[in-house]
Parts: sequence; C-alpha cells; structure tokens
Amino acid sequence: MDIELVAVGDELLIGDVVNTNATVLGQMLTDAGIHVTGISTVGDGLDSLVDVLRIAVGRADAVLITGGLGPTSDDRTREAVARVADVPLRRDPDVEQWLRDRYRDSNRTLTGLGLQQADVPEGGRVLPNDRGSAPGLAIDIAGTAVYATPGVPHEMAAMVGDQVLPDLLRRSGSPAPRAQRVLRTVGVGEGVVAQYLEPLEKQVAEAGAVEVAYLAEPGETRVKLTSTGPGGGEAVDAAAMRAYELLGDCVYAEGDETLVAVVARLLAKRGATLAAAESLTGGLLASTMVTVPGVSAVFRGSVTAYATEVKRSVLGVDAELLAAEGAVHPRVAREMAEGVRSLLSGTYGVATTGVAGPDPQDGRPVGEIHIAVAGPDGTASDTAQLWGDRDRIRALTVVRALELLRRTLLGLPQKQARECTG
Amino acid sequence: MDIELVAVGDELLIGDVVNTNATVLGQMLTDAGIHVTGISTVGDGLDSLVDVLRIAVGRADAVLITGGLGPTSDDRTREAVARVADVPLRRDPDVEQWLRDRYRDSNRTLTGLGLQQADVPEGGRVLPNDRGSAPGLAIDIAGTAVYATPGVPHEMAAMVGDQVLPDLLRRSGSPAPRAQRVLRTVGVGEGVVAQYLEPLEKQVAEAGAVEVAYLAEPGETRVKLTSTGPGGGEAVDAAAMRAYELLGDCVYAEGDETLVAVVARLLAKRGATLAAAESLTGGLLASTMVTVPGVSAVFRGSVTAYATEVKRSVLGVDAELLAAEGAVHPRVAREMAEGVRSLLSGTYGVATTGVAGPDPQDGRPVGEIHIAVAGPDGTASDTAQLWGDRDRIRALTVVRALELLRRTLLGLPQKQARECTG
Repeated sequence: MDIELVAVGDELLIGDVVNTNATVLGQMLTDAGIHVTGISTVGDGLDSLVDVLRIAVGRADAVLITGGLGPTSDDRTREAVARVADVPLRRDPDVEQWLRDRYRDSNRTLTGLGLQQADVPEGGRVLPNDRGSAPGLAIDIAGTAVYATPGVPHEMAAMVGDQVLPDLLRRSGSPAPRAQRVLRTVGVGEGVVAQYLEPLEKQVAEAGAVEVAYLAEPGETRVKLTSTGPGGGEAVDAAAMRAYELLGDCVYAEGDETLVAVVARLLAKRGATLAAAESLTGGLLASTMVTVPGVSAVFRGSVTAYATEVKRSVLGVDAELLAAEGAVHPRVAREMAEGVRSLLSGTYGVATTGVAGPDPQDGRPVGEIHIAVAGPDGTASDTAQLWGDRDRIRALTVVRALELLRRTLLGLPQKQARECTG
Repeated sequence: MDIELVAVGDELLIGDVVNTNATVLGQMLTDAGIHVTGISTVGDGLDSLVDVLRIAVGRADAVLITGGLGPTSDDRTREAVARVADVPLRRDPDVEQWLRDRYRDSNRTLTGLGLQQADVPEGGRVLPNDRGSAPGLAIDIAGTAVYATPGVPHEMAAMVGDQVLPDLLRRSGSPAPRAQRVLRTVGVGEGVVAQYLEPLEKQVAEAGAVEVAYLAEPGETRVKLTSTGPGGGEAVDAAAMRAYELLGDCVYAEGDETLVAVVARLLAKRGATLAAAESLTGGLLASTMVTVPGVSAVFRGSVTAYATEVKRSVLGVDAELLAAEGAVHPRVAREMAEGVRSLLSGTYGVATTGVAGPDPQDGRPVGEIHIAVAGPDGTASDTAQLWGDRDRIRALTVVRALELLRRTLLGLPQKQARECTG
C-alpha cells in the first residue's frame, strides 16, 4: 500500500516550523510496512491545497493530511477535502455539542470559526481527538483513503497511532511488516563502524537479502539491517549476529532503547544510584537522565557547578587545584565526581568539566572536556578534544559521560581510543 | 517571484532524516522576498522524480531541487532534470578534470558513477561546489528557472546563498525584502493573544498593508507583523506600536531574543546572580540558562534535587513539611528557592517542583507544578495545573519559571491569571 503525506501550513513554507510530523509519520508508516511515496507541503490557501490534494489522491492508495483543521480562518482542510470529494460539508451535531461542552469547561468562547471544527464532508467520518479541540476526518475519494489529522505533533501522533494506522492496516490486509533490526553503537563514528562491518557488507552484497544502512547522530551510530525479500527475518537475524561479532561492546542496545535508558537499567539491576556534577554541560546530563520514566529510583540528583567557586564550596573540589589549574582539568572532574557522590549519597558519581565555547576558558581551548565516574571501586576518567558549536560539544560530552558510566557498570575496559572490543 | 522546493531522497520519506533543508531554505528565501509556494519530497526513483519536477516546473517561476546529485546509483537528479527539459546530458570536461584532481588528492577512487557528477543537461550550467564533490546545476525549462544543489545541508546552504539566491534576485528585479517585526509574548495562549489583538486585526484588515500571524510554542506566542505592500516599514511600525498597547507586559522581547536571554540580560543589568533548584524539571532549567553565551557572569549553578531526601539534606527544606505534604507543594518550592539562593550565594534563587508524570506522585496529579523565586525582597511563587506529556510539562514549567523571574526582576505584578497588563 502506497501513501502520500500532505502537510498544511504557511509556517512550514517560510521555515518557521520544522516538519517533524513528516519524520514521525515516515517512521511509523514504514515500520508498519506501508510505503510513503511522497510528501507535499502546502500553504494555508484553499486553492493550492485543493490542487495538491487532487494530485495526491490521483496518485496514491491513501493520503494523510496534517494541519488546517483548527478554529481560525486559515484552517481550510475540511473545505478542501469536501471540494476534492465534490460533496458538501455538513455540521455534525454530536461534535458540535462536544465542542460546546469542551469550550465551556475551559472558559473559552466558541466562535463561528470554532464551530467549523464540527463540519464533516458528506460521506466522511469523524476521528475523535482526545487531546485537543480539532477532530480529524476520514473519507474515501474515488477509492483512495483520505485522512486528515491536526498538525499539533502529539495530537497527530496519537490520532494516527490509534485510528489511522489500524484503519490502513485493515485496508491493506495487514502487510507483513518488513523485518528490521537496529543496532545502536556508541563511541565510534559512522566511518569506523562501516569499516568494522566491511565483511558483513560483502556477505550481504552477495546474498542480497539484507540492506545495511547507517544513521549517524552526535556520538552514536545506528546500524539498520533490513530484509529486502521474503523470509527476511532469518537473514536479518544472521546479519545481526555477524554485526555483533564485528562490533563487540560498541553495541550498547537494540531498537528503541537509548543509551541513558541502558544506564538507568544497569543501575537499577545493581540496586545502585547515581549523582551528577556538571560544569560545561550545565544541567544537560541531569535533564537527559530524567527523560527515562521511573528514573527517580536510581537518580539522586545533580549539582550544576557553573561558577568555579561552587565547585569548591558545594562539591569540595580542592581550592589550590582550582587556583593552580582552573576549572578545566582531569583532576577537577575526578574531585567533582567524588564530591557529588558523597554530597548526594549516590553509589556512583559522574562529573563533566570543559570548555563549551564560544571562547576559551582558563587557558584551555574550546572543546577540551574531562569526564569522571566515581564509584565503590574507585574513579575512572575520560578526556577528549571535541569539535563543534556549544550545543554539539555539550551533547557529545553527555554521550561520553553516559558511555563511561555504562563501561564502569559493565566492568568493560575504559578505552579512550575509538575502538570496539570485538 | 514564486518558488517551489523539491527535496530528493528515500531517507526523507522513511523518516530517517528530518528535512531541515526545507526550513533553512524557507527562511532564506522568504527573508529575501521570494515566495515559497510548495515543498515536495520525493524518493530516489527516477520516474517519480520526473513526475514531481514536471508538476513543479509547470506551476512556479522557479524550482529548487536539493539532493540526488552525488556519486551513487541512487543519485538521479541530473538525469531527471535532463528528461524534464527534454535535452541530452553532456559530460563537462572541466568538471571531469576537477573531479579527477579532487579524488586523486584525497586518495579516493573515481568510478564511472562518480564521473556522472560531471554530467550537465544541454543548455544548463554548472554551479561549482567548494565544499563537496557534487557540483550543482542551473537551467531554464520553459521559462522556469530550475536549480539543483546537493542535499548535504552546509553544501546546500553555501551554494544557495552564494549562487542561487543572487541569480533569483537578478531575475526577479531584486524585490524589496519585506518589512517584518516579531513580538514575543509569554504567559498567554495563542487564542488569548488573538483576542487582545482584535482591534489591530480589524484595523489592518481595513488598511490592508500588514499581515498579522501567530506562532505558538510551549508557553509562548509570537506575533508576526509583515508588510504586504510598498512603504510597508512604516505600516509595520504603526501596527507594532498598537500591538504593544494591546498586549502590555506580556510582550517580553522582539525578534530573535529568547526569554532566557532576556532574564540573563536583566540579571546582568542589575549586577545580580541566579541559582536554581530543580525537581521535576531535572536540570532543564539550568541547561536552558546555559544556552545563553556569557551566562557564567550571572548564573551560579543549580541543584537538581530529584530524590526527596536531597531537598532536605542539600537544600534545607523542612523535613516535617516534606513528611506531611510530600515534595509537590508550594511551600516546598519556596524553601527550595530560598535554600539554593543561600547554598550557592545567588542574588536570586528559582525553584521548580511538581509531577512530570507519567504517574501521580505524593497524591498529586500529573501536571501539578509549583514555582518560586526568592530574592532580596522576599519570595514569589506560582502554581499551575499543566497538561501534556513529560517533556511538555517540563518545558512549560521552565517557561513559567523564567517568566516569574522576569516579572520579579522588572517589578511587574506576578499574575497567575493569564492576562496581560496593558
């Protein structure tokens, strides 16, 4: 089954908003075995929306529109769908009552434009929205299944996951989702991972049943192994086994599990807790930790010691060391990790210090970073010279700190070289 | 002048890559007074690319293609452009020599597929690429100016900025860049801002020289005032003055200045410093503060007191209060703010506590949050019931905390109601 996406909104054309909906939908639909063949982005104007919709409806088995369903005069998706279907809009009394109740409960005024959210093209049906006031639509136009959802990302994702995707799978006779495994590696760049996997690449190039793709993110590289034919599940499993052999302990997880989730899981398994002390990362390590639901069982908290003096007064870093070496020094990282471990009574303490930029600090260049992990068996540390802007240096430092934690918790060697132990 | 964008690549359709090129181009072109009327994303297949290009060339004054120019068998943009122009591809000997030199210098092998990067549709011209190996193209097809640039973001941005945009402006007779002002508001939703601005909307609807648009982000609404005709600068200034009258102190800045940058600026102006204590925001407030370059002059640091016990042991929150009320309570926020102010010797202390979810905590519902700001003149606080997922509740809490700080620093009333003091 082929589907085209249509994203509606001037804000997407003028670059005010990044079209992350297209990315989320691309992943959801592809994972479900539905083939996204095109994405069109169009402004709020009715005529251009009608034109684009007509073309998409003519080309694809299904069309999914996001945006233009709200309560303002710019929201014309309902009208456009009705025009392409060549049917009138009818006001749905149940939706109208639901809107009236909803607006009353939140002390908002329901205007005439607000009521247009209750309009449904004849022959279409309403997709209820339990997260916002704009319901979605589903309608058949000349054999093409057309859906419209709000553009607000979390409303869109819920409506597609709960209502649109099940409907699409029913229509397409539940295609077998393609077999895929995603190996997540850390600490080695895309080029190095690809080099490690050369024997696998050769093997699959000959057999032809599995596709190997790389996806690089700051500090991490994901390896996607996807079947390209029938019986692909076993071929993907065999390829994954070979990839594990070649990549060794650089693989930290599979699928959707993030590095921070792995660290939280390892801490929980050991009945251990973590405390963090941050300088250049300024709270980013802590805020990354707390993205894991239930992390409060293992995460004690953190101190962002942004001012050098706080490193001494709160974390107990040696004043003479700070005076002699400044805040960007491997021993400062070690003392911060040990200090916060003691202050917050964590089993482990992790610390970051360094220069995020834009200017050098204490005579150290932008991108010099020091990380330490203090635990019951002593303190490990890592040092690096990173490249990039402030945000990138911080993000890379967080990944390296989590990786040093993972290696400590697993008893793996704390390599500073960018190598996998196969 | 109207332009359509065409983004090429399977990775965009399956959601492996976010189409940030479209966002960057939307901003660059719109700022230059060129009207982006549509964006099409298409896969690597030749036929679908040809189809999409034909439609775009038929609709717009100009078409800008990104991607599909590289050295692999998936790169078919040159071929597609030639087919739509109905001309043959010719190998450009200068480009071929340049490629041979370039590959030799970097010790890479130039294959036959690599040489296709020297192919140019007859009648077209080469756009040199000084950042990568894939040159761009420019060609006229039936009066439409068609450009193709690599998909790699920094190569694309340089080629468009240096070569495509100047060419477009020459063709369109250098349209005057549109006049625009952006007012940034906080603490009131998009609907309420629009309600406040009704008198302005009526005025500009009659005069017709200014367009008013709203852009909602978590906790903030931006109001964009854009001129739609000649002499627009003065009309935009008059509209901005009216908007300031109507929105009062809900406007915190104009243009690109963020709320956190305003807070940092106000602190610096007063020679004051800030310390933060975070519970549910888990480091997000601190990491937001440190996005401001030079913030180390005003930001002392923060304590993420994720475990309840840390609120007592490090921040000095009353143990009986914690035992009786739990961690989610307005007095806990106040004592956290006062405690961190004293611990880190800040002029001001700011604190957040609440329930980010997914589960209720200490008998309090998901989304209940408490914020406090302690300063030389006492402690102010704010309480709210927010809606959304973990990430959204955290993001909204950070915005409210920054807004409470801004109001405290400016001596504005600390309204909890969602109203602007005009």
